[in-house]
Amino acid sequence: MRIVLDAMGSDDHPEPELEAAAEAHRLWGERITLTGPAEVLASRVDPSRVDIVDAPEILEMDNKPAVAAKKKPNSSMAVGMRMLKHGEADAFVTMGNTGGAMATALFQLGRIKGVRRPALSPVFPVRDSSTVVIDIGANTDCRPEYLLQFGIMGSIYAEIFLERKNPRVALLSTGEEEGKGNMLVGEADPLLRASELNYIGNVEPRELYDGEADVVVTDGFSGNVFLKTSEAVAARLVELLRTEIEASPITAAGGYLVRPAFRRVGKLLDPTEYGAVPLLGVDGLVFIGHGHSNTHAVVSALHAARKAVSRGLMQALREGLKDSL
Amino acid sequence: MRIVLDAMGSDDHPEPELEAAAEAHRLWGERITLTGPAEVLASRVDPSRVDIVDAPEILEMDNKPAVAAKKKPNSSMAVGMRMLKHGEADAFVTMGNTGGAMATALFQLGRIKGVRRPALSPVFPVRDSSTVVIDIGANTDCRPEYLLQFGIMGSIYAEIFLERKNPRVALLSTGEEEGKGNMLVGEADPLLRASELNYIGNVEPRELYDGEADVVVTDGFSGNVFLKTSEAVAARLVELLRTEIEASPITAAGGYLVRPAFRRVGKLLDPTEYGAVPLLGVDGLVFIGHGHSNTHAVVSALHAARKAVSRGLMQALREGLKDSL
Repeated sequence: MRIVLDAMGSDDHPEPELEAAAEAHRLWGERITLTGPAEVLASRVDPSRVDIVDAPEILEMDNKPAVAAKKKPNSSMAVGMRMLKHGEADAFVTMGNTGGAMATALFQLGRIKGVRRPALSPVFPVRDSSTVVIDIGANTDCRPEYLLQFGIMGSIYAEIFLERKNPRVALLSTGEEEGKGNMLVGEADPLLRASELNYIGNVEPRELYDGEADVVVTDGFSGNVFLKTSEAVAARLVELLRTEIEASPITAAGGYLVRPAFRRVGKLLDPTEYGAVPLLGVDGLVFIGHGHSNTHAVVSALHAARKAVSRGLMQALREGLKDSL
Repeated sequence: MRIVLDAMGSDDHPEPELEAAAEAHRLWGERITLTGPAEVLASRVDPSRVDIVDAPEILEMDNKPAVAAKKKPNSSMAVGMRMLKHGEADAFVTMGNTGGAMATALFQLGRIKGVRRPALSPVFPVRDSSTVVIDIGANTDCRPEYLLQFGIMGSIYAEIFLERKNPRVALLSTGEEEGKGNMLVGEADPLLRASELNYIGNVEPRELYDGEADVVVTDGFSGNVFLKTSEAVAARLVELLRTEIEASPITAAGGYLVRPAFRRVGKLLDPTEYGAVPLLGVDGLVFIGHGHSNTHAVVSALHAARKAVSRGLMQALREGLKDSL
């Protein structure tokens, strides 16, 4: 398996990436290839365990990732993705700017034949299970046909990556009844209904968290509001509880005792456990993680990429999309 | 002050409404007027404390609230709203179906002159403060001009109801930087910027919960996703913590001690503390609450309506919108 890791992606680069690459060798005996300026990286890796491919250009992320992607053909992202393109790698992992990674992927890899818009599809922990939400921010303005394709890609991803049989696909909406939601949802509904997907209709955020669907389809704006609201509310609620627990000596004593429970819940919800999100629909396996990833998050991202490669996600997407588009 | 309460709104009607009306007399010496079938209500109220206006028709909520609103001119909602229209009441409060209440309000009251779309604007508890979010679901598909008007109405509401001076108005988006968000946000931004509002640009859900704005403007679909995700994540997180706390005797003992802290946080986040949400932009003061409201929630709703009347919200909206539309 040949996994390429952008050494210059995370906010603290290249430390988390260097440590994660070394850890991958320890854990799985895997040689990770790092892309980045060789002069920065060479002295800091053990060449018997980690490979380096020189990528001297630094991608400065201004407001125009598309322009940056074209202007810097030798950035660590561009070099890594070209390796995918040329069959020299099986997956590319980056903790870099999401907009930049998407633009570079579109420019260097292009889309799988027939795909209108690639989409970001993280896996959310839900009651007793997990759920793919697609799209979470790659496409802020969508057409109904895009949502149908998100459903197809998400369903294949859930089948392969989460080993779900006949995944239940739903539309994120503001009511469970047919006819609830905005115009986009109203127009995507008949397309999904007419497809070969196991489409179950609308779900609201509560049903999503109750695990009623395996794949929840949404436009990237609403999906991003969903993701960021989830993160914000969890952080806010934990903060509130902490403040109230510390407000009296008795609750503070109780707080000491319940700490392991808080830790277990924190771990369950910790985004670093997931590491990175696949950009489904581009013609190569690309995983994009948070800029503020630490070593653990990068290792998780590498783990996700390995799993996707070993289960043949890319071939499944190419095959599945060929049949259904 | 003349507050009219729909006796037939809540899922458990008319019990919560009857009890809340009696409670209003105890708390504030206020005579509430209940609308609903006199034959159901008359024997159950103390006529020296609560008034009844007969409204014999029952509003069955199918999928077409607009049709129902027109076909039942003598429903408890329609009768109450006509009292507003004819100057026989200062505010109308209902726990009934939101779609039905909006349709009935538009049909019976119409809009304040110049208003394109009425909007639902609840107040969210945020760090050390509270924030108006508008719209939370009345308009699933919006044009940029609607968002500008939501900003104007929300700003007046925050000024009057929350006593904020020069309220900070923001757009809900998927990034703080200018240019982030979908097309609607991109087109609403210059309108808000050119207005006389204290517009501070985009906020993400985290900034919203950090209290960085007094009013957050959004289309009703994203707003509803925001609201329902907030509720779902809070419920899910509390459930997870409870499960993990009960998983061992030590954490369970701690759980017993921290219970008051959980209760205080629960109260802080409890929607029944807010009771009802104003439908801003219709030509009369209408508050709409949850169908599953209990007596406490209905009392809170009556309290909110009283506050809005005594502070002159309706006049402020009429004046403020006249100047700025």
